[in-house]
Amino acid sequence: MTIAKISRPVCILGLGLIGGSLLRDLAAQGVDVFGFNRSPSGATAATSEGFSVSTNLIEVLQRAESAGALIVLATPMPAIGSLLDAIDEHAPTCGITDVVSVKAEVYGLVCDHGMQDRYVGGHPMAGTADSGWSASLEGLFEGAAWVVTFDHAYNSPSDSWVALWIDVVRMALSVGAEVIPTRVAQHDEAVARISHLPHIFAEALAITGDNGGALALSLAAGSFRDSTRVAGSHPSLVQAMCENNREALLVALDEALTLLHDARAALASPENDLSLLIDTGYRSRIRFEARTGVSGISGVSGRPVLRLHPGAENWISQLEQAENLGARIDVF
Amino acid sequence: MTIAKISRPVCILGLGLIGGSLLRDLAAQGVDVFGFNRSPSGATAATSEGFSVSTNLIEVLQRAESAGALIVLATPMPAIGSLLDAIDEHAPTCGITDVVSVKAEVYGLVCDHGMQDRYVGGHPMAGTADSGWSASLEGLFEGAAWVVTFDHAYNSPSDSWVALWIDVVRMALSVGAEVIPTRVAQHDEAVARISHLPHIFAEALAITGDNGGALALSLAAGSFRDSTRVAGSHPSLVQAMCENNREALLVALDEALTLLHDARAALASPENDLSLLIDTGYRSRIRFEARTGVSGISGVSGRPVLRLHPGAENWISQLEQAENLGARIDVF
Repeated sequence: MTIAKISRPVCILGLGLIGGSLLRDLAAQGVDVFGFNRSPSGATAATSEGFSVSTNLIEVLQRAESAGALIVLATPMPAIGSLLDAIDEHAPTCGITDVVSVKAEVYGLVCDHGMQDRYVGGHPMAGTADSGWSASLEGLFEGAAWVVTFDHAYNSPSDSWVALWIDVVRMALSVGAEVIPTRVAQHDEAVARISHLPHIFAEALAITGDNGGALALSLAAGSFRDSTRVAGSHPSLVQAMCENNREALLVALDEALTLLHDARAALASPENDLSLLIDTGYRSRIRFEARTGVSGISGVSGRPVLRLHPGAENWISQLEQAENLGARIDVF
Repeated sequence: MTIAKISRPVCILGLGLIGGSLLRDLAAQGVDVFGFNRSPSGATAATSEGFSVSTNLIEVLQRAESAGALIVLATPMPAIGSLLDAIDEHAPTCGITDVVSVKAEVYGLVCDHGMQDRYVGGHPMAGTADSGWSASLEGLFEGAAWVVTFDHAYNSPSDSWVALWIDVVRMALSVGAEVIPTRVAQHDEAVARISHLPHIFAEALAITGDNGGALALSLAAGSFRDSTRVAGSHPSLVQAMCENNREALLVALDEALTLLHDARAALASPENDLSLLIDTGYRSRIRFEARTGVSGISGVSGRPVLRLHPGAENWISQLEQAENLGARIDVF
């Protein structure tokens, strides 16, 4: 896959795990990238490593405006509304993307601000249980899925929106991610299942284990460690992402509760037979491994690829097809 | 900790992940160790690596009897009853331990056979999602908890039982494990919380993710991968261990279901507030990390240590204290 370089500078607002890692990767490629961080300690640490980072939001946005930069919203959800206000005032022509783990909630704010024609949503499916600038690292996005949303494609968007869409894709591809186009609703439904629900389950498992006291915690090994890992994530981040995807998370949670209640009934019945849950779960896990290459050859993606030309007559149907297949795309 | 060598040869019945790894570690230390494997392919592979392994159970048991070996039951639960029958007939004086992940069910069979005075239960809390001889490896038990049961200590056991208990502890210590004494009921309650419930949750998560179709599987990343990892374990092994710990698993599952239903109600309410679940889960995970040293210094155990002299007047109260604290023990 040939990757054209992003055609404009990049301005990242929020330099935590995701924003900070993106800053590192883009800088390493020679992209003109700079950023804002609210916490002075993170900004100082980033500056001391030679990055162009400031705690003055207005100055950073003014610089973005004069440079024609792509602005990346990389804060947790609760800060997004006020950042859009500030962009409206201080960087009124810049294109905008984000890396927030819910997309409908962000898109609602974008629409409230009338910014649809200058916004393309994004969500890199990468992370660790750690957060903040100190957790950021180079190469975090290598092989990761990076969702790029396309809802505005249905609204006869401007040429500049299509150009923005291409640049967001190029930015994601350039840091080694695999771009998967989705609409915001489809994204939120999917991540409720594969990210937010696992967080809820991890919390419940951690508590139930801990309720077993010192003996249970002493005996806990690999299965407990892995299944509760994300319960070690910063609580406010987990809360923001789950609560902001309420509708889709309720659907996924109810599905899972039905499975658990069925399993409970099977376990308690005279037959004492958990094979339905366990056999089905095993097959599901194997399908996941095939898709993401967990057990496959390193560096070889299990995701199908689809080439498309943004703005071409049939590109919406191609985007829908990619969304449906969970396919990564190449643009030409 | 000074570790005295086990005072007798070891005969391992079943050379899967656990039995095979134990064979490798003991052989590497020069212990006289041999084994039985039902599957000829596993036995052939082990033999070709120079280990003394046979598919003839009767011959292996006769050798154990004449050598005065410690017999280790390392098959899944369903085979334990018939192995005890065979031991009764062909190795009537050998001491017995096991590595099965449920203890009450095994102890019930031991009592049915009248073998309490020659049996000490064991359970190494180690493993991977793989199984069989090909998955076995050296060093699997390094730093792992290894439960050694002591229910028979209340029954005025023979001196030979105390000697057997010491040898089982020595065997576990010699392969790098940390020995935690428990009674079978306390063990089963604890592992229902920290092993069997995580397996049930992993299955339900894998299915709910898979129900999201190709898009969900394409977006699934670290949280899904880790939280569903054990759903990739061989289904029959998961089934045997969960179904054979039914009563304790139902208690743990019901506790977790209550947490999930409370969280669902909190999410669906106008307040949309998941902080109770998420804050509590976070604190539980941190307690677990402190205990097992997940985020601590490698090689430094977070488990308290208790020195005891098996058979001494106060050893039962010491054992109960260790069980209560989840403490590892040193014997002298």
